[in-house]
Amino acid sequence: MTHILDSYALDRWFTPEAGLVDIPSAIDGRVVARASTRGLDFAAMVRHASEVGGPALRRLTFHQRSDMLKALGAHLTAHKDALYVLAADTGATKRDNFFDIDGGIGTLYAYASRGRRELPGERFVVEGAPEALSKNGTFIGLHVLTPLHGVAVHVNAFNFPCWGMLEKLAPAILAGMPVITKPATATAYVAEAVVKLIVEANILPAGALQFVAGSAGDLLDHLTGQDVLSFTGSAATSQALRDHPAVSRNAVRFIAERDSLNAAVLGPDAVEGTPEFDLFIAEVVREMTVKAGQKCTAIRRIIVPKAQEGAVIAALSARLAAIAVGDPRRDDVRMGPLASRAQRIATQEAVREIAAEAEIVFGDPDRVEPVGADAATGAFMAPVLLRCAEPLKATAPHAVEAFGPVATVMGYEAIADALALVAKGEGSLVASVYTYDPAVAEELVFGIAAHHGRLVLIDRDCAKESTGHGSPLPGLVHGGPGRAGGGEEMGGLRGVFHYMQRTAIEGSPARLSALTRTWLSGAPAPVTPEHPFKRKFDALSVGDTVETASRTITLEDIEHFAHFTGDTFYAHMDEEAAKANPFFPGRVAHGYLILSFAAGLFVDPAPGPLLANYGLDSLRFLKPVSPGDAIRVRLTVKNKQPARKPEYGEVRWDAEVFNQDGDTVARYELLTMSSRI
Amino acid sequence: MTHILDSYALDRWFTPEAGLVDIPSAIDGRVVARASTRGLDFAAMVRHASEVGGPALRRLTFHQRSDMLKALGAHLTAHKDALYVLAADTGATKRDNFFDIDGGIGTLYAYASRGRRELPGERFVVEGAPEALSKNGTFIGLHVLTPLHGVAVHVNAFNFPCWGMLEKLAPAILAGMPVITKPATATAYVAEAVVKLIVEANILPAGALQFVAGSAGDLLDHLTGQDVLSFTGSAATSQALRDHPAVSRNAVRFIAERDSLNAAVLGPDAVEGTPEFDLFIAEVVREMTVKAGQKCTAIRRIIVPKAQEGAVIAALSARLAAIAVGDPRRDDVRMGPLASRAQRIATQEAVREIAAEAEIVFGDPDRVEPVGADAATGAFMAPVLLRCAEPLKATAPHAVEAFGPVATVMGYEAIADALALVAKGEGSLVASVYTYDPAVAEELVFGIAAHHGRLVLIDRDCAKESTGHGSPLPGLVHGGPGRAGGGEEMGGLRGVFHYMQRTAIEGSPARLSALTRTWLSGAPAPVTPEHPFKRKFDALSVGDTVETASRTITLEDIEHFAHFTGDTFYAHMDEEAAKANPFFPGRVAHGYLILSFAAGLFVDPAPGPLLANYGLDSLRFLKPVSPGDAIRVRLTVKNKQPARKPEYGEVRWDAEVFNQDGDTVARYELLTMSSRI
Repeated sequence: MTHILDSYALDRWFTPEAGLVDIPSAIDGRVVARASTRGLDFAAMVRHASEVGGPALRRLTFHQRSDMLKALGAHLTAHKDALYVLAADTGATKRDNFFDIDGGIGTLYAYASRGRRELPGERFVVEGAPEALSKNGTFIGLHVLTPLHGVAVHVNAFNFPCWGMLEKLAPAILAGMPVITKPATATAYVAEAVVKLIVEANILPAGALQFVAGSAGDLLDHLTGQDVLSFTGSAATSQALRDHPAVSRNAVRFIAERDSLNAAVLGPDAVEGTPEFDLFIAEVVREMTVKAGQKCTAIRRIIVPKAQEGAVIAALSARLAAIAVGDPRRDDVRMGPLASRAQRIATQEAVREIAAEAEIVFGDPDRVEPVGADAATGAFMAPVLLRCAEPLKATAPHAVEAFGPVATVMGYEAIADALALVAKGEGSLVASVYTYDPAVAEELVFGIAAHHGRLVLIDRDCAKESTGHGSPLPGLVHGGPGRAGGGEEMGGLRGVFHYMQRTAIEGSPARLSALTRTWLSGAPAPVTPEHPFKRKFDALSVGDTVETASRTITLEDIEHFAHFTGDTFYAHMDEEAAKANPFFPGRVAHGYLILSFAAGLFVDPAPGPLLANYGLDSLRFLKPVSPGDAIRVRLTVKNKQPARKPEYGEVRWDAEVFNQDGDTVARYELLTMSSRI
Repeated sequence: MTHILDSYALDRWFTPEAGLVDIPSAIDGRVVARASTRGLDFAAMVRHASEVGGPALRRLTFHQRSDMLKALGAHLTAHKDALYVLAADTGATKRDNFFDIDGGIGTLYAYASRGRRELPGERFVVEGAPEALSKNGTFIGLHVLTPLHGVAVHVNAFNFPCWGMLEKLAPAILAGMPVITKPATATAYVAEAVVKLIVEANILPAGALQFVAGSAGDLLDHLTGQDVLSFTGSAATSQALRDHPAVSRNAVRFIAERDSLNAAVLGPDAVEGTPEFDLFIAEVVREMTVKAGQKCTAIRRIIVPKAQEGAVIAALSARLAAIAVGDPRRDDVRMGPLASRAQRIATQEAVREIAAEAEIVFGDPDRVEPVGADAATGAFMAPVLLRCAEPLKATAPHAVEAFGPVATVMGYEAIADALALVAKGEGSLVASVYTYDPAVAEELVFGIAAHHGRLVLIDRDCAKESTGHGSPLPGLVHGGPGRAGGGEEMGGLRGVFHYMQRTAIEGSPARLSALTRTWLSGAPAPVTPEHPFKRKFDALSVGDTVETASRTITLEDIEHFAHFTGDTFYAHMDEEAAKANPFFPGRVAHGYLILSFAAGLFVDPAPGPLLANYGLDSLRFLKPVSPGDAIRVRLTVKNKQPARKPEYGEVRWDAEVFNQDGDTVARYELLTMSSRI
């Protein structure tokens, strides 16, 4: 019996009984699975996410959510072979699975690690520095990010059923938002298998993840201003979702990643015989053939100096001719079929549209001889290379996305023309640039950056380790302006923050310190009865303070320090020369002398909970210290964070050094590791 | 003759001749001005902005654009009295003008200062830290922000013709984007006067600013994915703009600030007689009456403990009864008319809708006796207070924005009910909270933050300096989710970045260093023939490096430093105790000793271009230094920035301290001031 895809709603699997749609194999057209969402209560799913999943996730800290993502990654890794097998019917080769399945799991790990490393052990983020809003400092402001209270609805494309789901899921869960994920039906059987693994792992709290195999029904009708809708796919579908009445009325946050005619630009210096020329050829061929060119980031426009056009076409044709198309499970096959015969028809149609303004110089969109498979029942297509003779006048090669192994060569005379050609794409996810000339790189990069979410500069220095034109990475923004949809995904924490509300909070330093668990200037700084260095991490409170005795800095101290350290800079040693310096009134103490004496004033020598000073941030010397001045220090617990190891914690101290007049001479943040045991 | 409003297009003033619409005075209904855009070529305006204004602005650095904003602020300040006079016909009192005209000019100054202080002297911004993308570090990534290549179209509301225009203009110009600004026609004569002053000042480059007095015609049809559309006004208009085919098709960046039923929440502790109760009453009255309540940030929902409802209504009624409504030019008048009689009719209609689920407890929407004006010809309206008895069940008081001096009192039992009431607003620009109880503040703030762009916590500690519930500030985000439109304006640089494209750039450290003019690990670090401290600011290049000799740190050095500075921490002094510390192998050198010796190694003692070390960032001690270890330093120019005074420049150095094995023991960024003369 054909496998019927289940949806996962309200923490239960739902098997549809009516309205089933057949999903054919890309290899041979046999029915792989059937899907329907008839009978699914989408309103209840949205409610369940908001009322059960959201509150459960929001009770966890970022670190706890990170740990869940890591555990999910481990569980999927242990079962990924089964996913590979399933994915073959989508047309994926081993190489393709590396991007989709391993890449998806890698995104879980990447966000797990980033959440631990870059987010606090809290449920909110303080973003940026506080804003001074008043003369006396009794009214200040800052920004916090907190998870939205609704649901993240993810509508994914057919080409990456695993990665496309997990790269959206990871940042949402880390942010603290429950997810309803809806894969494209054509490859939903792979997504279903991934979700079954996730559910079976029992790592996420109830309501955190729901899964829709099939049509989205009336799901969007139930969205509110606390929800996020994130879409990957065609521009047409994207516009329909974006303009849905509930999305528009409620200003639902909308993230789109859609059509994109990505360019690869060969610099004028990168002539045949240079490493950059060869790297360019290899990258274009790779991008045309990985996933049979069904990648939103694939190279569609091959922009080359007119003088290199012939050489480029010859080199590409030779490499493309060597690509074996066929059954993706075979080791001798380099490129599998498209996702479906319908997809092949759409791609062939797109080639015809482009060919109205360009000529086919390699391949035949209607002819293929697949290895170990039947061209009639499978969705195979051979790579097709076109050439557009007058690209500045043409439209289709810049506007029609042939979502398969198809790209168009276009020549340019001056770099300004290359910029104009790139801009005719009206916004892309990514472009790659191949040059070893710094001036060319600068002109190209700043000329096209505004049209792109990502640029890759490939040259001999980085090629060996480059991840390439087509690979979105968790740490870098994925998305682009205009035709590409204007959305942004991933980009490290940027991707997490799309699921959070930024709120400016104004009030007294005392109140904002208490709320953010971060001491702010002007908040109470009570001197503790014992030295705070004697307090274990968990006994320390934000605001705990030590005020030191004062120490006079003598000219002898300065001279002694200078000779001892070797820092005999004239501002410390020569009264006349120092006076001539615009910043000093005469000889002054070394900044490092002030720091060192400050430490001497606040350090508690005996062993205790404070284990080490591992760093220092944002030190500014604000006023010169002259011989005879006396300094003292106020040291206050600014913030506490759990360390990686449970037996330590990281304490950030606000250190302010004053002179005898009460003026601040230096200010910095001191980082210490303190014991919890 | 009645004043006909000009538009400013293609750097020329355009006076319309047909299709003129009358604009009545709010005070007495006489026609103040007439407006039309018939004959304006909007396509040419968009083209002019993109082809002339954009390139001109992009040629300037952020600092140059900041200076233009500052000069504009000075010019407007010198002529603001004329604006006050004009604004009276919009209904604005002296107090209202302070917010609109002085507030608008203040925003120019605020962005001018922020651009100088927080942005580099460049045409792009490097955002965040580089991302390591490869094992050997030859392929890395980072994010840059560059101005979009299109035009920022600003469609503004009638209530703040000056501030509403300038708070959008300042961040766009600072970002490097030209602006087409379109005020609401009802008060466009004030905006026209401001734009005439700006044009007359001749500070902005050609094409940087165009102005539309009247209907926007087919302006939106010409927008592309490189443009930004920013709107303030009603939800209905906002949706029409957002769903415009060109905006949707081209993914035009859309920023909306629309309906918002902002709440003020009185904490259960803030009973009658407490300072917070009094502050609450004063703030609600202020928000109901400033600009006759025609503020998107005004308090519409007064959420109070049920036990305090009577006291709150009594206190508000007493204060509202004392508000003199009338001719805004009179000193004895506290509140002027609404912007127009049409606006009054809309507000009265809204009151009737709310009154279907609430009772009017103070004022009469249909009755007013204005001081020094005629109730029949002017757009006056008295303050109206309503009370909703069952607010958790009601709809209209949470959904109907009566854009005038109107608000509704609603009682709650438990704090959870207060949270639910706030959430029923479905997203607001701002809420204010009045409590002196930390637990109440925490529960309220984290319970409602996700629904707001801004929260104000007003209590006795900050009230004196508080800028209040209703004031958006340049440094804080203005905008809110859901009903409020989901947009964000201002918020410091956040507001600037809405006009820029974020692009991830990948490549070799050498290439990315050159492009960003910021040295990155792995990029070339050539040792200069002379010590780089001997090079003047302008002669220094990013990457210039000094490699120092090495120095062995002896146990005597450590002991000497300990006794000299007073830092006798056991990890430096006691071998056994140090060994017991999990981070140290035994006695180790002080971090500050390493820093001080490092300075001794790289400092050039004689007077020269390097004037002062004014700070240090991101210091991390990465490996302990034991007695007998030898350290050396590599110091490399990381980045150069012009200082405020033209005779200096700020240099940021990457400092890396190595031990005898080549391991990094400390890393930091050193900040110096260097001479340019």
